[in-house]
Amino acid sequence: MENVLQSLIVENDKKILLLVMDGLGGLPLTSDGLTELETAKTPALDELAKNAECGLHIPIDYGIAPGSAPGHLALFGYNPFDYPIGRGVVAAMGIGFPMKAGDVAARLNFASRDDAGNITDRRAGRIPTEQCAKLCEVLGKVNIPGVEVLVRPVKDYRACVVFRGRDLSDHVADTDTQKTGVPPLDPEPTSEKGNKTAEAAKEFVKQALALLKDHHPANAVLMRGFAELPHIPLMKDRFKLKAAAVAVYPDYKGVSRLVGMDVIEDVPDLEAQIATLNRIWKDHNFFFVHHKYTDSKGEDGDFQAKVAEIEKVDKVIPRLLALKPDVIIVTGDHSTPAKMKAHSSHPIPFLIRAECIRPDGLTRFGERDCGKGSWGIVPTTKLIQLALAYSDKVLKFGA
Amino acid sequence: MENVLQSLIVENDKKILLLVMDGLGGLPLTSDGLTELETAKTPALDELAKNAECGLHIPIDYGIAPGSAPGHLALFGYNPFDYPIGRGVVAAMGIGFPMKAGDVAARLNFASRDDAGNITDRRAGRIPTEQCAKLCEVLGKVNIPGVEVLVRPVKDYRACVVFRGRDLSDHVADTDTQKTGVPPLDPEPTSEKGNKTAEAAKEFVKQALALLKDHHPANAVLMRGFAELPHIPLMKDRFKLKAAAVAVYPDYKGVSRLVGMDVIEDVPDLEAQIATLNRIWKDHNFFFVHHKYTDSKGEDGDFQAKVAEIEKVDKVIPRLLALKPDVIIVTGDHSTPAKMKAHSSHPIPFLIRAECIRPDGLTRFGERDCGKGSWGIVPTTKLIQLALAYSDKVLKFGA
Repeated sequence: MENVLQSLIVENDKKILLLVMDGLGGLPLTSDGLTELETAKTPALDELAKNAECGLHIPIDYGIAPGSAPGHLALFGYNPFDYPIGRGVVAAMGIGFPMKAGDVAARLNFASRDDAGNITDRRAGRIPTEQCAKLCEVLGKVNIPGVEVLVRPVKDYRACVVFRGRDLSDHVADTDTQKTGVPPLDPEPTSEKGNKTAEAAKEFVKQALALLKDHHPANAVLMRGFAELPHIPLMKDRFKLKAAAVAVYPDYKGVSRLVGMDVIEDVPDLEAQIATLNRIWKDHNFFFVHHKYTDSKGEDGDFQAKVAEIEKVDKVIPRLLALKPDVIIVTGDHSTPAKMKAHSSHPIPFLIRAECIRPDGLTRFGERDCGKGSWGIVPTTKLIQLALAYSDKVLKFGA
Repeated sequence: MENVLQSLIVENDKKILLLVMDGLGGLPLTSDGLTELETAKTPALDELAKNAECGLHIPIDYGIAPGSAPGHLALFGYNPFDYPIGRGVVAAMGIGFPMKAGDVAARLNFASRDDAGNITDRRAGRIPTEQCAKLCEVLGKVNIPGVEVLVRPVKDYRACVVFRGRDLSDHVADTDTQKTGVPPLDPEPTSEKGNKTAEAAKEFVKQALALLKDHHPANAVLMRGFAELPHIPLMKDRFKLKAAAVAVYPDYKGVSRLVGMDVIEDVPDLEAQIATLNRIWKDHNFFFVHHKYTDSKGEDGDFQAKVAEIEKVDKVIPRLLALKPDVIIVTGDHSTPAKMKAHSSHPIPFLIRAECIRPDGLTRFGERDCGKGSWGIVPTTKLIQLALAYSDKVLKFGA
């Protein structure tokens, strides 16, 4: 099917705008209550929904809460099962690190340990990013024969380590127990393929502990999400789209880079995102705009703050529409109900607006409203097919 | 799944009537408007919808507009990806030409060329069918060692050419550039497998140009859609159905023949279709009734004329119901919105009525009404499974 679809796609200049409010889907706090989205005052989104086709989508499968990377991959039209992306790769791509085929990346946390070797703080007292950067330089002295080790700062206590060499593999387990009061685990291979990498990671930890000895609170390292680069076809090849990512957070820029989007840098907030869109509008035909804080507030369990974030986005909708996108999709990558303080499996509301559609005439944009939309429940990966079709980019199949 | 389903099917005399209004799905002209079907006055269909189960269906995939052949194959319960049908085969089957395994068919247009060899009219001044038939006889003189060439008239300037011989293949590109002022392309092989057929086609063109030299405006030929016969299991084997096609247009008779339906000839219009149904009602248990003009008017961009065609069909619904089908499905093979003047990817409304169902109680038969129907959106290939089940032709699965 994928190949057939690909063979039907034609290029044109019609513009698709994909606005993602991270973790948009929510839950009512009580069984007779409203969700965050249903609670928010969203006159612009409601008006849009009235003249749009609506539905709910499921990124992975019924009952499965997606992580951010698979959620976004699905929105970009890639089946997350076909392209599993480890956390290490997301971290590396997020900081623009040029990973090569065969590299293995892992997320690295600076942490605190006591003399017995037990972890006392998994975040090293939340050291600032500048200090993290200096410590990454210190770890640059690690020397492992046959394996190059590259350590780069991400944010605060978070960094990224990339192992480069022959016959490496991501079949290595996390060293982070996610607990304090115990020592980190050794990096153990999860299959024979991981033996060499696990050995290198063990040696890395040993040398790192020596190098960080006098750097309390950052005198230990934890590693998670060993991952190789997936072989993902680029959006320009797969969908003939010239795609741009206008995102604030590194991880989302990372996923965008993986599928070959032009990632616009130095976009610190929503205001800058809109200015950026205006600036680059003529140069691309697919625009991914990402708003992080709906998810953050959901994870915090702060219902009202999530409502406020949705309302903040609603206020800029008219300025997005002023760009006159040929297709606009507004949705999320997964649900993050404040009630659960976590990603959840609940289907995510979406609306799609274009010239040639049958508007559902809903009175507002909400989970249960979209549940009455004409699309019902669709796999997330299908949304891009609708966007391509509604911007006249898909030829007829068969005679 | 297909084999499991097949093993569960039993034969009985209960009758299924599949009424297809070609290109039925439409779009509103303005975002607050109604579609063609929603606009049409359809008291009989509305009454039927009220007492039916309703939904929308998708023949190929989200965002993909189907051609007529794959759209109908899906309605007949065959996944169009499993059985790709080239245009040449559709044309040959449409005129009842008995293609054999290994034959390669192509559509042939008579065209006009100037002395320089450039095409001046891709339709040869739309010569009448009788003249087309005479010219096909003229082309009967083509003589290619080892390859039999059979040319048959279709309609107006359109004909069909079948190459018969050993080691032929449909890996040959179109010669029709779809432009005037340029010469036709040579029939080039698209892979090594197509070499022999391309050579034969080149020789055919060479001899045809000589034979047609004095037949201006029909002094050239264009070829499109080289195609081999797909290996499709017949409806009687796959679904144990004794199926009849009651269609006016050649192409739809062609697809019906491919799946082994009895194709009733000499059915010039809707009136004759109903008379035919009455005549053959006792001899079959599956009846495919096809109305072409909803699609034609949509392709013309004539919203009101498409509305009128739907109303014309609505008027005969009582006479179809008078046959007392055990199951009736009313739907289309794809959408052809007058607004787009083309096939589109928008889901197609359907209703299914039988004795043992849960009527949705909709107030009318329309796209957005059906969008609220209990079936939601289903793959087109599943409709026949519903029809089989609702006519008691499917055994229970498992103990």
